[in-house]
Amino acid sequence: MKDGNPEPLVLRQDDGHVTRLILNSPMNYNALSTAMIDALSDALDEIAGDEAVRVVVLAARGKAFCAGHDLREMQGARNDEDGGRAAYARLFSRCAMMMQKLPALPQPVIAEVQGIATAAGCQLVASCDMAVAAEGARFGVNGVNIGLFCSTPMVALTRAIAPRSAFELLVTGDFMDAARARELGLVNRTVPPDALETETMALAQLVAGKLPAAVRMGKRAFHAQRNLSLAEAYETAGAVICENLLLPETAEGIQAFLEKRPPNWD
Amino acid sequence: MKDGNPEPLVLRQDDGHVTRLILNSPMNYNALSTAMIDALSDALDEIAGDEAVRVVVLAARGKAFCAGHDLREMQGARNDEDGGRAAYARLFSRCAMMMQKLPALPQPVIAEVQGIATAAGCQLVASCDMAVAAEGARFGVNGVNIGLFCSTPMVALTRAIAPRSAFELLVTGDFMDAARARELGLVNRTVPPDALETETMALAQLVAGKLPAAVRMGKRAFHAQRNLSLAEAYETAGAVICENLLLPETAEGIQAFLEKRPPNWD
Amino acid sequence: MKDGNPEPLVLRQDDGHVTRLILNSPMNYNALSTAMIDALSDALDEIAGDEAVRVVVLAARGKAFCAGHDLREMQGARNDEDGGRAAYARLFSRCAMMMQKLPALPQPVIAEVQGIATAAGCQLVASCDMAVAAEGARFGVNGVNIGLFCSTPMVALTRAIAPRSAFELLVTGDFMDAARARELGLVNRTVPPDALETETMALAQLVAGKLPAAVRMGKRAFHAQRNLSLAEAYETAGAVICENLLLPETAEGIQAFLEKRPPNWD
Repeated sequence: MKDGNPEPLVLRQDDGHVTRLILNSPMNYNALSTAMIDALSDALDEIAGDEAVRVVVLAARGKAFCAGHDLREMQGARNDEDGGRAAYARLFSRCAMMMQKLPALPQPVIAEVQGIATAAGCQLVASCDMAVAAEGARFGVNGVNIGLFCSTPMVALTRAIAPRSAFELLVTGDFMDAARARELGLVNRTVPPDALETETMALAQLVAGKLPAAVRMGKRAFHAQRNLSLAEAYETAGAVICENLLLPETAEGIQAFLEKRPPNWD
Repeated sequence: MKDGNPEPLVLRQDDGHVTRLILNSPMNYNALSTAMIDALSDALDEIAGDEAVRVVVLAARGKAFCAGHDLREMQGARNDEDGGRAAYARLFSRCAMMMQKLPALPQPVIAEVQGIATAAGCQLVASCDMAVAAEGARFGVNGVNIGLFCSTPMVALTRAIAPRSAFELLVTGDFMDAARARELGLVNRTVPPDALETETMALAQLVAGKLPAAVRMGKRAFHAQRNLSLAEAYETAGAVICENLLLPETAEGIQAFLEKRPPNWD
Repeated sequence: MKDGNPEPLVLRQDDGHVTRLILNSPMNYNALSTAMIDALSDALDEIAGDEAVRVVVLAARGKAFCAGHDLREMQGARNDEDGGRAAYARLFSRCAMMMQKLPALPQPVIAEVQGIATAAGCQLVASCDMAVAAEGARFGVNGVNIGLFCSTPMVALTRAIAPRSAFELLVTGDFMDAARARELGLVNRTVPPDALETETMALAQLVAGKLPAAVRMGKRAFHAQRNLSLAEAYETAGAVICENLLLPETAEGIQAFLEKRPPNWD
């Protein structure tokens, strides 16, 4: 995409403490080509070190949020000497690294989904911490329809929704609508299509209004304690909440609450 | 059941690439006697090695899907010298082995449920990959009502639905209806009773129409990655999707999609 | 609360085989002060060894179920030489120990929730085995609103409801109502406010009517097998169900069922 396309694959827009990352390849439904994966990965690395960013919204230009991997690019690799084996291993390793940067990012990430989110596009939604979807948006892990079971999207999906519903989507290749996606817990909110950006940004600004250090500690603890035993999880989370309490801003937040006034965090 | 009953305990019917296994002991609500467990186990072993089978439907004859273990047989073992201890250990070990063959089977398994599925019968449903239920079907892990907590059914149930809903069913012994079972994720679809077989078979045929090698790889990966950390799960699933991509049929499937024609997989 | 308040912080009422523990500090919304945590902890220790108790209901006096930790007490510790560090570590360690006594208790525990259950109050609900909520009750893990992310409540909450819904509550600080809490699986039943005690006690008595030894074995197995692999979980649960079967009362329970008569367990 470096040649012939003057626009970057991922746009960044900062709006106060909320940063919008926008998939910007509407012509191919924002396919996760190697270049797109790298662009997204770079953008996330940049944000990880940016103290000014408190919340990230992952949005997309065009009719679709993201239709998954770039099939043309993948077919091209079959001409390699090894039939594509090395290229595929590289591609999926890079993609998995990028997907894992979303829960690892210090800031919460909200997917803003319109049109379709399929295969690795659905994985991208499930890898964000939350999702807002336009009514009418559709979700699928439908690689099975072309003979490619969505094994990697499955990793994120089965950690977001109930296992038997995930299995059904994976083997049938069926779409589910936004309402069902909310019912199953993949999507947090569904909104009318023309309110998608406004509502997602309102949610983002709400979270950006909280004490940033507390939200960062909390997000890290959320993912750190997920697979631990109850006792281990309490040890992890207990250490975190003690550190949180010792922040001067938290002392002020609690004091303000007791005095029934807004906290002075500026 | 070998004596006096000319019919086998489990019937097998092949319909194209879909195989129906039918519990065939309607007189005792398809109780999971030792003989029934063995018959089901043998049928699953046979199918595991049968390349022609792409999807399995587990159905049942009579008014009930399955009412759990064979209580008369269990009471009989109390006359053993050890009061039944060895017989019970053998029974539950065998039953657990059989239940675990369902997720381990290369082919997806769909439960087709009418009437009641209680105790180990509910475990059987939860051990299949998906379930279709007739409206009016009822589910329970209600051994507690006769003083026998459903500890083994619980293993499958707590891996299918939310923990506190499972706990309630286990300690109250209450039934839940098919609609609630779908809400909780135990059941994938509810259908009118007289459409049960048709709808279940339609779902089975839909899955049987996908590339069999991709579905097999996918089902294996689904169960393999479930309890792994995110990083380990991506390693496992990444290796699987690369192997999947290198199948000639998948090359054809993707090419056909790009050329907007059906794949030539025959 | 030892001075100036003649009433204990936790009341105990025994009603047949059901014991009600009642948070009794309505003036501060039953805040989990150190004294309240200790009182609750002691009450649970006492019940753990009491064979006569079959089910516990955890209720609360006043307009709120529980509003979380005691913020005034926490602010007081900031005057310590170390700014509160040691006091906070002690507080959260003690609180986590108390919370873990709920799943570890031999008897099932049902939360009976009115008004609000926020922060550690929501954790308390999620740490019980089941919950009944008055319509109109509201739940939140909203410490983030005052700069204190609910990291420890998160441990219990993320083991009860779907991860992305938990994340939303944690970072937005929003309330959810009882209906949504039931949808997500935190609450088992919602009832009209003036039926709260009656309905919760009816559920408790239903469970208290089951064979106590079976319920105790079952609850222990429920929590023991949750994080195990499928094979390990079946080994654990298989041993439990065999022991359960060998109880004379279970022999009688099954025999009574086969003879279509009520069991003689008295």
